[in-house]
This record gives sequence, structure tokens and C-alpha cells, in this order.
Amino acid sequence: MEGRVLSIQSHVAFGYVGGKAAAFPLQCLGYDVDLVNTVNFSNHAGYGRSGGSKTSAAELESIFEAMEFNELLCPTRVLTGYIPNAEALAAVARLVEKLRKQNPELIYLLDPVMGDAGRLYVSADVIPVYRSLLPLSTIITPNWFEVETLTGISLTDLHSLRLALTKLHKDFGVPNVAISSIPLAPWLSETLPNAIRPPAVSESEHLLCITSSVSNENSPSEVHVQCVPLLPGYFSGVGDLFSSLVLAHYKPSLEASLPEVLPPFRTSLSEAVSQALTKTHAVLCKTFEYSERLPEEERLVTDDEKDAVEPIRKVRRMRGRELRLVQSIDIIRSDFGDATRRLERWSGFWEKL
Amino acid sequence: MEGRVLSIQSHVAFGYVGGKAAAFPLQCLGYDVDLVNTVNFSNHAGYGRSGGSKTSAAELESIFEAMEFNELLCPTRVLTGYIPNAEALAAVARLVEKLRKQNPELIYLLDPVMGDAGRLYVSADVIPVYRSLLPLSTIITPNWFEVETLTGISLTDLHSLRLALTKLHKDFGVPNVAISSIPLAPWLSETLPNAIRPPAVSESEHLLCITSSVSNENSPSEVHVQCVPLLPGYFSGVGDLFSSLVLAHYKPSLEASLPEVLPPFRTSLSEAVSQALTKTHAVLCKTFEYSERLPEEERLVTDDEKDAVEPIRKVRRMRGRELRLVQSIDIIRSDFGDATRRLERWSGFWEKL
Repeated sequence: MEGRVLSIQSHVAFGYVGGKAAAFPLQCLGYDVDLVNTVNFSNHAGYGRSGGSKTSAAELESIFEAMEFNELLCPTRVLTGYIPNAEALAAVARLVEKLRKQNPELIYLLDPVMGDAGRLYVSADVIPVYRSLLPLSTIITPNWFEVETLTGISLTDLHSLRLALTKLHKDFGVPNVAISSIPLAPWLSETLPNAIRPPAVSESEHLLCITSSVSNENSPSEVHVQCVPLLPGYFSGVGDLFSSLVLAHYKPSLEASLPEVLPPFRTSLSEAVSQALTKTHAVLCKTFEYSERLPEEERLVTDDEKDAVEPIRKVRRMRGRELRLVQSIDIIRSDFGDATRRLERWSGFWEKL
Repeated sequence: MEGRVLSIQSHVAFGYVGGKAAAFPLQCLGYDVDLVNTVNFSNHAGYGRSGGSKTSAAELESIFEAMEFNELLCPTRVLTGYIPNAEALAAVARLVEKLRKQNPELIYLLDPVMGDAGRLYVSADVIPVYRSLLPLSTIITPNWFEVETLTGISLTDLHSLRLALTKLHKDFGVPNVAISSIPLAPWLSETLPNAIRPPAVSESEHLLCITSSVSNENSPSEVHVQCVPLLPGYFSGVGDLFSSLVLAHYKPSLEASLPEVLPPFRTSLSEAVSQALTKTHAVLCKTFEYSERLPEEERLVTDDEKDAVEPIRKVRRMRGRELRLVQSIDIIRSDFGDATRRLERWSGFWEKL
């Protein structure tokens, strides 16, 4: 693979989130990566305290302007992640609009990083700006909460999931949606195709990954899914790694290729997400195993009361759970072949609509 | 190899200088890299215009303080490069002093980035701060001009070269000095050991790489040298790549190992620099070949008059000469074995003193 990715997201000195989680995998897979840092922090917010500063919208614009003047705005792909406020996001939006006009073939993966598990961690005024950016995207990789935030639809059953996907595809013009980790609630598990439903007893130990792609306006989207075993504990940067791998493995020309290359009903997105899911899970397993082997004081379980008295407990837990990304170079560069966690087509998804 | 490098140098969005030239090779060779950005620019200064801003000393300190609070200052190696002014450099110096005290085994590669070919490109008040930092270093990688600037000695003959190295080792307490690219003037060429002297006709097409290491206070240093063919044109980031590879390949325990591992008269530094020189030259050749294949308008030769009228000439030349770093992943990870450009011992270097 060859290409040039313009990645606009956070930078941390220590550890692997944002650009630090994305650049190395993209580079290992052959992409030149232009890295614009939306913040310059010591570490991610999960540690409780961090140093450094956010990049102002004016500074971002000064970087973009100089790049344009020097003819350095020549990416074949764009990746945007954490952008902390509406002014900065608006500057990024103007840039992406320009790049999209210059190059209709541009592949833009928009990760609308806004929050998780019901809580926003950017200022609320970014929401309308993200909505205005959606029509420029090729792929979006929201989490569950971000789908709800963007669409205004609470995801409580299959019907609301269909409505949300329809809204993203039709109203916001997003061709490809990938949601990497949906809690496998009973209503969701019950409706899954048999081939991919985990044994009932272990449903709560699985997450669902779902993709939805439209190839033309008149057909419903192709929906693909896969379950992934949930690892205990919270690991930061996993979504950023996943998005970078989806972008790295996305081959837009696949749909036009022979059935030997892309079997019927598979999509460029389902193929890319299968690769990304497999590699992300392998990196996560490696990280989990490493964190389990650490001395006990480096892996004290979450305990809000004890953590409040002794904040270093949380800090050490975070440090012990930083992605083992550099050590995963062979995972990142591998072709998993038959061992790929391949997404399966959810053929009946739209039928009962 | 495993370890953790704290790299403190410049960041550019586009292209490969500073941290962008150093992080990927170190990561590919197995190191976790903590990246602190001393500037956040769109591109390197050679383009003539750049956007973004310098990181203030206060911002650097805020990053270092948060890292210390979160117990994230745990590098086994430190790499410092371009730091634009004395206040920022003083903040870095205080940090390195603290790290050195905490860990006497710390390996600190100091690249005293100050200028080239007779011209300073940092403010002059950094010079005394760099001098005060020298005793904390394990290895320094100055260029020819930076040796002159640090020692105050003009390098015009073998005698002055000996004086400068003595000053660095004895007065400034630097155990290892590596100078990667010295123009091969006649006085230098004449004195070289026969084994490594290039044919007289091609002297001007070669650069000399020299290392000097002291193992104890009472013996003169071990000096090693190698010639490298000079490629036409100026390529940015080469020194930053070289320094990162020297640090990556430096194994301090080699001197204590068996002769099968480290033959007599070789040093940890001469071994590391042999690897770094080989790989840097291979990346540079790859970059040169790529730039030669570009369309003519992307590789217009330097012509100060034409460049002044049409600045985009220079900009495109710069862009065409950005290191092909990502495409060199196999070079970076290779063991060159017998094809290594091995430094040779300059056994008579100190004899005529």
C-alpha cells in the first residue's frame, strides 16, 4: 500500500492515544503521515492530571496556510480525531472541504471523538460542526454514544438502530459507518444472525462490531457484524488505533474487482474493518497479558474510594494499560489470512423494517 | 532491543526532520518513544516559510511536571535535538540533570543542534547552556561547525582536531563523540589510515565520519573513522535520523563482553555508529534515487537568482528531497552483516601529539 495520510488529532508525549496510536500503524503499513497536533499534552486525560496546552484555531490555521503555500496539502487520505473545541473543529472543517473539492477521490475517515458511555468530553458546541462535516466523510467510526449524539436517537432496540443508520446514510450523506464496540444487550443479541451470536452465557463478555455501507442511493445498506470478546479493564487509545487501521486497510476500488478478490456481499468497509478488528484485538490481548504480569502495585483494580484517597493508584493502572503498540509491529504488518476475525453479512437486517 | 526513549526535539506536520525523523526508526527497532515537541511547525525551515509556533519554556515545564507527577519520567535513554532558545534549553537541562541523578545508567545522546556550515540557526545564548549540558551526556553528535562552536577551536588541521576532541573529553567530560560528516579536506585525507582513504581523485566526493571514545581517564581515546560517498544536493533530517540510529544501536555493555562479540579495539560507539552510518546512507540513497525520478519541475537545481524570483522552485526541491523514511522500514530493521560500513580504528591518531 502507498499513500499519504493527513492525520489531525491529539498528541501526548507519553503513551498511545490520538496521533501516537495512529501514526505508527499507518507508517508500518507504508503510508507517509502528516501529523497535525490539536493538543500537545504530557499524557491522556485518564491519568487525572496532564501538562501542556491545546493548539488554538489560529495556530492550526497558520499550519494549514503554510502547508498550502508550500504545496504540502497533498494527502490521498485524511484522518481526524480528537479536536477539543468548535473553533478548532471549524478550522479543520474548512480545510477538509477544500481538500475534498480539490480531490473527489480523497478518502476521509472522520472519527467524531466526543465522548463515551453517556458523557461528553469535548465542549457541546462541536456537535453541530461535526454534523456539518459528515457529508464530507468517506467513513465514520463513532462509538455507541457518538451515534446517539450525532443522530439524536437513543439506541434502545433494533428499530432505533435502523433509524440511526438511515439518518447517517440518508440525511447526513455518510457512505460508510463502522461502530467498533457496542455492548451486546439482549435486544441486540437476540436479533443477530446465528452464525455470529456468542453462547448466551457469555453475551455480557462480548462487544459487537457493526458496519453499514451504501453503494447506491436506491438500495438499503449492506450490514456486517462480528462479536469480539471483551477484555476486563479500560484501555485508552483503542478506538484511535482501530480507526487508523480501518483507514490503512480500506481499498475503495474493491467493489469493482473480481469475485475472487471481493466475494459477493462483502464491502470495502467490511474487509477493512475485518483486518482492523483482528489487529486491534491482537494488540489489546498483548497489552492485557503484559498488564497482568506487572507487579501488583502497578495494576490495582478500580476502586473509587481508594483511588480518591491515593490518586497514584489510578495513575499506575493507566500506565500499566498503555497499548503495547511498538511491540506489536509484527501484528500490525501481518496478513492474518484465515485467522482474520471476518465480519459476517447480516442479511436480514433491513427486512423487518 | 527494548527500552524507553524520551525524545525532545522539533515536530513538523509534513516531512521528516527532528522527532519525525527519529521516532519511527526508534519504534521500528523496538523502543517506546516519549515525544516532547519543542516546536510545532508545518514544515522545516528550509522551505522558506512555515506556520505553527515554538513551545515556550513554561509549556515544556508544564509537560515535564505532569509527567513527573504521574511517574511517567522513566526513560532508559534520552535524546535531545533542536531546541530553539536558551530558556527552553535550560528547562530541558534541569530535566536531564534530574534524570541523570535518578539513574546513573541513563544513556543520554545530546545532539547540540545549533547550526551548519558556519551559520547558527538558534539564538547564540544557547551555546553556554549546551556547554553546561555536555558533562551529563553519554554521546554527543555535533557536526563540524558545532564542534567548533562548542570548543571555540577552528578545525584547520590534525592538531586542532586533536585539541577539540581533548577539550570535549577532558574539559567537558563527554565520553563519546561522533561527528557524522566532515568535509574531506586534503590535510585530513593525507593523515587518514590507508585502509579507509578514498582514491585521491574522488576525495571531494566523500565525507568522513569519526568517533572518539574514552574508556578511562588515563588512556587516550579510541578513534574510529569511515568515509561515505557524498550524494549531490542537500537533504534535511539526515543528522536527526543518524542520531536516532546511533542511540538505537548503542549497547553500553559491549565493552564488558567476550572478544567474539566485540573484537579488540572496537567500542560500543564505533559499533553503533557503523550500524547508523550504514542505514542512514541506505535511506539517503533511496531518497536520492526517488528524487531523481521525479518530474523535472519537482527537482530544479539550486539557483539563487531563479529561486529568488520564483520561490516555489525551492519549495518543490525541498519536498522532493524529504527522506523516504517510511518506505525504508526494511533498511531500518535489517542486520546488514558483512555489508555494514564498519568504522576502522585510526590507530596512530594520537601518536604524533
